[in-house]
Order: sequence, then structure tokens, then C-alpha cells
Amino acid sequence: MQQYPSQLLERAVEAFSQLPGVGRKTALRLVLHLLRQSTEDVDSFADAVIRVKHDVKYCKVCHNISDNEVCSICSDPRRDGSVVCVVENIQDVMAIENTQQFHGLYHVLGGIISPMDGIGPHDLEIESLVERVEEGTVKEIILALASTMEGDTTNFYISRKLKDTGVKLSVIARGISVGDELEYTDEVTLGRSILNRTPFES
Amino acid sequence: MQQYPSQLLERAVEAFSQLPGVGRKTALRLVLHLLRQSTEDVDSFADAVIRVKHDVKYCKVCHNISDNEVCSICSDPRRDGSVVCVVENIQDVMAIENTQQFHGLYHVLGGIISPMDGIGPHDLEIESLVERVEEGTVKEIILALASTMEGDTTNFYISRKLKDTGVKLSVIARGISVGDELEYTDEVTLGRSILNRTPFES
Repeated sequence: MQQYPSQLLERAVEAFSQLPGVGRKTALRLVLHLLRQSTEDVDSFADAVIRVKHDVKYCKVCHNISDNEVCSICSDPRRDGSVVCVVENIQDVMAIENTQQFHGLYHVLGGIISPMDGIGPHDLEIESLVERVEEGTVKEIILALASTMEGDTTNFYISRKLKDTGVKLSVIARGISVGDELEYTDEVTLGRSILNRTPFES
Repeated sequence: MQQYPSQLLERAVEAFSQLPGVGRKTALRLVLHLLRQSTEDVDSFADAVIRVKHDVKYCKVCHNISDNEVCSICSDPRRDGSVVCVVENIQDVMAIENTQQFHGLYHVLGGIISPMDGIGPHDLEIESLVERVEEGTVKEIILALASTMEGDTTNFYISRKLKDTGVKLSVIARGISVGDELEYTDEVTLGRSILNRTPFES
């Protein structure tokens, strides 16, 4: 067991080592880095952490992180409210926004169904998605979850829940990544990319 | 440029990405992790950061981090005050303490001489080391700096500064690491380990 020369140091290292992917050695390095910064910088760091936890809101429409009751995407009149893209988390919203290919709205589930991790449908924002569709303005739901067993399970669960609403359901294309060589692509992905081939556009 | 859905989130990500080895993607992951924790846990995290910066002291004898004016090592009567081990930083003190092979005191320089990084002898705690030796209780100084050009330069500078005090100067052994194969050891290290061979003890 590592001996720290100071209780305060040990407590700070302990706090940082609770973060994902941060071990005690890295935590110590981060704390010693902060000790070398000015008091104002460190106070500002701590204040940013406190503020984001206390003051951040979740959009009541799409459950994305937001500074207001309704997020900047949901309140943007230029966006198409008839198409809703269902994603697992906030990072996925940012990833899709970065592509600049999607102009509809989002619905953040807050996770995917994963019995192994004890996450069931009721821990996710699926009920609110159904309510949103039942309001009638949404014409198409795009399921943009990970291409894993958990993602497929969640897709299946949502499709069952939305069956009676008559909304159009689609799933993002799965195939070989841009820049990938065929010989190094796994057979399931390659098989799907042949089955789901699209018309060639020159 | 990544678009954040919230100013508060962006500020917190910005704060974390100032830490060494933390990029914006990792920073976002850390902030979202904190958002999933309880408010008490996040407040405790921020408080640990503020407390360590505001309340931590540096031992006035050895300049190690401490909760008091004099650190727990320097104030321990069981430790041998006649041997002082000179190290670059606090991590090195902890690394040597972990070996449980050293029972003397330390002197933390706070860096090593590195003209490339603009660190000269006057940025380090060398003057206070000389004063400590001149007080007369120290009989031996062990130089335990990195085996690099900067470490060698600092060793040389300290040895010059301490020449007139008549204190015994030694440097930690350099040789092949325990568990290392000879054929994969670099030639400088291997050469030194032959020159500095020690009597075989069975």
C-alpha cells in the first residue's frame, strides 16, 4: 500500500482515482499537476465541476444535456421535428451532430438494455419516446444504437413498443467502414453489407 | 470543432482537458461520469481538490508535501538524520519509501536542472540543501536523480556546491534491472554495471 506524505494529498488522489480509467499513479500525477497551478486556476477547475453538476439540466423533450428546459437542438425552428434519431447517450448526439448529415431531432435513451449490467427497459427513456410518438408530429424514428447484442435487443424492444403507433422505423446502415479493406472486415459485417447493398450513384 | 450541447458542460470539459494526458474526448467521458454520480460525491470531489490546493504545506526541512510545517518523515525520531537522499520530486520520495530500504531523510529539489525547459539551479531547492549540510548533522548525501543528462548535470552541480562542506557524497547504483536479460540491456548500462561490480555475497 502506497504511503502518502499528506492526508489532503491522499484524499485528492482518492477522489481522482474514482474516475474511469484513472489509476492511483495517474491520479497522483493529476493532483501534483494541479498543485503546480495557480490557486485561481484550481478554484476555477473545482467551480466548473460543481457548476456542471448543480446547474446542468436535461432537455425535457429529448433528455440531452442542456443549459435550459428545452435544449438548443429541440428549440431550433430550422430542425425537422418529424424525424427523431434514437441514441444511447450524449456522446452519440455529439458524434452525429459532427457529421452534419442529420437535421432532425434526437431522443437520448440514457443507456441500452443490458440484463448483465442490470439495466432494463424501465431504466431508459423509452416510455417518454412512445409518448413523444403518440403526440403525432413524429413521422420517422431512426434507431442509431450500437451494433451489439444489447443494441439489437433495445432496437427490438422499441420496435415492439412503437408497433401500434404506425410510425416509420428505420435503423442506421451497417456495413464496411469508409476506408476499410474487404479482406480485413469480419464476415458478419461483410455479409450484411452485401445483403443491404444500395444503388450505385456515380 | 466539437459542439457541446451546454456551456456548463463545455467549461467542465475544458477544465479537465487542461490536465496532463487528458484530451477532450477523455475529459468529456470524465465529466459525464461525474454527472452520473450523486451531488454529494461530486461536491466531495471538488472539495478535495480545493482543500489540497489551499491547505497542503511543504515541509520546511525537506520540501516534501506535508500536512504540517515539518513532514512526518523529518519529524520521525526513528529516522537517521545523518543521511539525506536528494530526489527530484515527491513521487520519488514515495517510490523510495515503498522499497523500505532507506531509513534516512530526504531533500526534494522540485525538479532537475534542464536548460531546455528553462529550469536553472536557482529554480530548485539546492541552496537550502547546502544550508542543511552546513548545519553539520548531515554526514552523507545520496544523490538519487534520474540517470539522464539532466540528472547527471544536477548531480555535478550539487557536488560542486557541496565540495567545501566535506560531506560524503554518493550516487544510487546504476546497473541492469532485476529480472533483465543481458542481451537486451543497452551497452552504456551494461558497461557501467561491469565497472561498478560489487562483491558477490552468497
